[in-house]
Amino acid sequence: MNLKGINIIGGEFVIGTDGGIKAINPNTNEELLPEYKGISDTDFDRAMNLAWAAFIEYRLVSNEKRAEFLEAIAEEIEKVGDDLVQRAMLETGLPQARLEGEKGRTCGQLRLFAKVLRDGKYQDIRHDVALPDRMPLPRPELYSRKIGLGPVAVFGASNFPLAFSVAGGDTASALAAGCPVVVKAHQAHPGTSEIVGRAVVAAVERCQMPKGVFALLYGSGSKIGQKLAAHPVIKAIGFTGSRAGGTALMNTAAARAEPIPVYAEMSSINPVYIMSEALKNRGKEIGAALIQSMMMGAGQFCTSPGLIFAVDNEGFDDFITSAKQTLGKQTSQTMLTPGIAKAFNQGVDRIQQSQQVQLLATAQGTDKPNQCVGKLFLVEGDQYIGDKALHDEVFGSSAVVVRCKSFEQMQQLTESLEGQLTASVHCDDNDDVAVLQALVQQLERKVGRILFNGFGTGVEVADAMVHGGPYPSTSDGRSTSVGTAAIDRFLRAVCYQNVPKAVLPDVLK
Amino acid sequence: MNLKGINIIGGEFVIGTDGGIKAINPNTNEELLPEYKGISDTDFDRAMNLAWAAFIEYRLVSNEKRAEFLEAIAEEIEKVGDDLVQRAMLETGLPQARLEGEKGRTCGQLRLFAKVLRDGKYQDIRHDVALPDRMPLPRPELYSRKIGLGPVAVFGASNFPLAFSVAGGDTASALAAGCPVVVKAHQAHPGTSEIVGRAVVAAVERCQMPKGVFALLYGSGSKIGQKLAAHPVIKAIGFTGSRAGGTALMNTAAARAEPIPVYAEMSSINPVYIMSEALKNRGKEIGAALIQSMMMGAGQFCTSPGLIFAVDNEGFDDFITSAKQTLGKQTSQTMLTPGIAKAFNQGVDRIQQSQQVQLLATAQGTDKPNQCVGKLFLVEGDQYIGDKALHDEVFGSSAVVVRCKSFEQMQQLTESLEGQLTASVHCDDNDDVAVLQALVQQLERKVGRILFNGFGTGVEVADAMVHGGPYPSTSDGRSTSVGTAAIDRFLRAVCYQNVPKAVLPDVLK
Repeated sequence: MNLKGINIIGGEFVIGTDGGIKAINPNTNEELLPEYKGISDTDFDRAMNLAWAAFIEYRLVSNEKRAEFLEAIAEEIEKVGDDLVQRAMLETGLPQARLEGEKGRTCGQLRLFAKVLRDGKYQDIRHDVALPDRMPLPRPELYSRKIGLGPVAVFGASNFPLAFSVAGGDTASALAAGCPVVVKAHQAHPGTSEIVGRAVVAAVERCQMPKGVFALLYGSGSKIGQKLAAHPVIKAIGFTGSRAGGTALMNTAAARAEPIPVYAEMSSINPVYIMSEALKNRGKEIGAALIQSMMMGAGQFCTSPGLIFAVDNEGFDDFITSAKQTLGKQTSQTMLTPGIAKAFNQGVDRIQQSQQVQLLATAQGTDKPNQCVGKLFLVEGDQYIGDKALHDEVFGSSAVVVRCKSFEQMQQLTESLEGQLTASVHCDDNDDVAVLQALVQQLERKVGRILFNGFGTGVEVADAMVHGGPYPSTSDGRSTSVGTAAIDRFLRAVCYQNVPKAVLPDVLK
Repeated sequence: MNLKGINIIGGEFVIGTDGGIKAINPNTNEELLPEYKGISDTDFDRAMNLAWAAFIEYRLVSNEKRAEFLEAIAEEIEKVGDDLVQRAMLETGLPQARLEGEKGRTCGQLRLFAKVLRDGKYQDIRHDVALPDRMPLPRPELYSRKIGLGPVAVFGASNFPLAFSVAGGDTASALAAGCPVVVKAHQAHPGTSEIVGRAVVAAVERCQMPKGVFALLYGSGSKIGQKLAAHPVIKAIGFTGSRAGGTALMNTAAARAEPIPVYAEMSSINPVYIMSEALKNRGKEIGAALIQSMMMGAGQFCTSPGLIFAVDNEGFDDFITSAKQTLGKQTSQTMLTPGIAKAFNQGVDRIQQSQQVQLLATAQGTDKPNQCVGKLFLVEGDQYIGDKALHDEVFGSSAVVVRCKSFEQMQQLTESLEGQLTASVHCDDNDDVAVLQALVQQLERKVGRILFNGFGTGVEVADAMVHGGPYPSTSDGRSTSVGTAAIDRFLRAVCYQNVPKAVLPDVLK
């Protein structure tokens, strides 16, 4: 595909004037053309005005027409052919199979939200019939339903260049909710963003949607992000990225004349619990599986396992030995960007500098640039609480095993954790149910998803999925960014009291 | 009842050590005994620790037991007898019938949330069955359900000493959600708060709930409020009060190491629209009804009408004449507190100082203290947008009529409004449906509740009620503080993936 280095505003392709972004191929450190210049202030304001005008019109578009629009986006993305995945490979260093899968997931999400729209339950329609004879006062007729909040700013994520970027989960759920979307392209994959952005524009045209329903903006650093978060037209933010980035958006959003909700998915170390029977019977197997999960995609998943709790009982040494051996045979992988690779190395250095921590094993390095050389550490339970460095996320293939003295210590250390996206529990049939229940009850207070005999990676797009969790795993622990419930983030309820039938919105008639 | 001037912590009655609050009878300006000393720092921390300990236990209490607890609170409040309403009359100046009604509403709310618990839908239980043969990857079994956020700080409201205070809507919905409640008593009705607090304690004991599930704290000024909002144990805030008070809590909550949601119901002028046919046919009647609504309870309702839009067509003069005549015959009423009466007078003075505003009518004053002497003003549509004073809430019986040149101007002025709790539309059968639809579509973006041929006062406690709205009417426009959906404010979803049946929470089995 012939990339133009354009922003997209109101269906038009606009060359920016501010600075310039070029993607870097992380496998070679070579710059990739074209250059993407940041949007000018004038065009930025135009995009905001168009988004607002589109909101007034788009929110009234029927569920069926919005569903067709989402399906058209999926079709247009599929029409692009191989160019999309090829460009994404260059920009992210991710392997083809992974990106093909992610493309399928992206289109699947769009189609899932089309189903959500046709089903209509997302509107949470409620009705209280009039009780004209009620004493002491009659009851009026009441309806309520949920409507879109307004234009949503979506921040493309580096680690999901398709599924959490231009037409990813945030965009799909916001468009489904009746909210126009203004995407800030992630600077690590500007070309991928352009290709998907063009597909969305084709769908906008095909479905005759208001032109301002979608915009794709480029800009350098956090400047454009802060401008988006501060602009009065924007009524909510969807973000996946670092804790620092998410926190900056939260601060800006809270300081506005009209504060707005921020849905930032930020930081999680995803504790793993290996219970005694599982450790005894399957310690070796779990050790190998842990490393496979930790190494998958260079650990560049929000739900990558970063912390393992196990009591020093029978099987512990098998587990450790197996994990060490498995990791020692793994080869390093290229990370998404030079910045992420640098941050990973700083993160593991920070852990290694701790006096209390023992390096158990390291993956095999190569002389390619931007490598994630996976590392596994060990620390004693007594030392874990006091060591702040061991509580922070290291984005990449790194995990710390905490050797606990008892289940009680495991619970005590768990209490010291910040909010997490996931917790994984490995158990066998003979593990004590009462102990497991106590752990689950504790984890309910700490995490968004509790899973058994597996790892958090692989986030199913489904009705019951919760990809969220208490702060700082997300900025708003009441929300999920994956699954059908993600649409709730961009909705609010309106009540209609004694509204004449002729005037009621169609969905309430 | 023999009031003791006590705080309540862990079911015990504790005399404070900090400052001292005495209620003032607004009808006489006389102080009412006893004095309520603010909680000491040590006892404050104890209350926080007890709330946290109670959360761990109380959130696991079954829906049925929680329902019985809420019903027991209602029964204990009813048991108190006349003392409650008598004390509330002294502390608030509100008439007996109003307070009897509010007591009924308070108990009704508690029983409604008992129904919500028995119904169980509030948990939003979702289930995705396992698809072990799905290609390319199997789908795990997923459940999700909503659980309580943690201890909630509830701030008693001056204008609803029962229904939005110690055992009011925020407390009922938080307790239903499985969240312990720490109430900051409103300093205007400390004795009423003590009586209700004792009733809650009796229910806690009768139902053998964890002692820390309820606390009632006194303290001077905003000090204790800020301490509550900042304390790590508190996971959400329910507040009804001023914009300044709500904003201060929002700022504190956003600045915490772990930011928390604030549900503050703050400020609304509740625009009223009189459409042309209604104005022509019923201008006189609507004028009288407006004044009745505005004067009800001295206008001390969040939903009191403060702004009226009408086009200067046939019937406008009838409307104005009728409103003037009706207001001129009304007598002033005692406001809740000297502070509120002072703020009301400052608010109407601010409006009167505007060059553009004409005073249409004034209610009859008396020589009693703390009077709300209702006032009605008129301004031309051309002048309204530029006059900031006319956009701010004046808490009390005050309203501004905006004489519009056209429906288009009415829409333009509406666009300039901040978020509101309610908007009322008065129309007749002959009013243009397309015009009404356009207005409703505009109002959906601005308000939480749209009602026809009535006024916003009288907020039905029902499934479809939305007592919320875009900022600044509330801090979080996604929420309602009245009706069954109020429980959603204190919940978050947790997902259970491949969790063994024996370990799953009972409600998912």
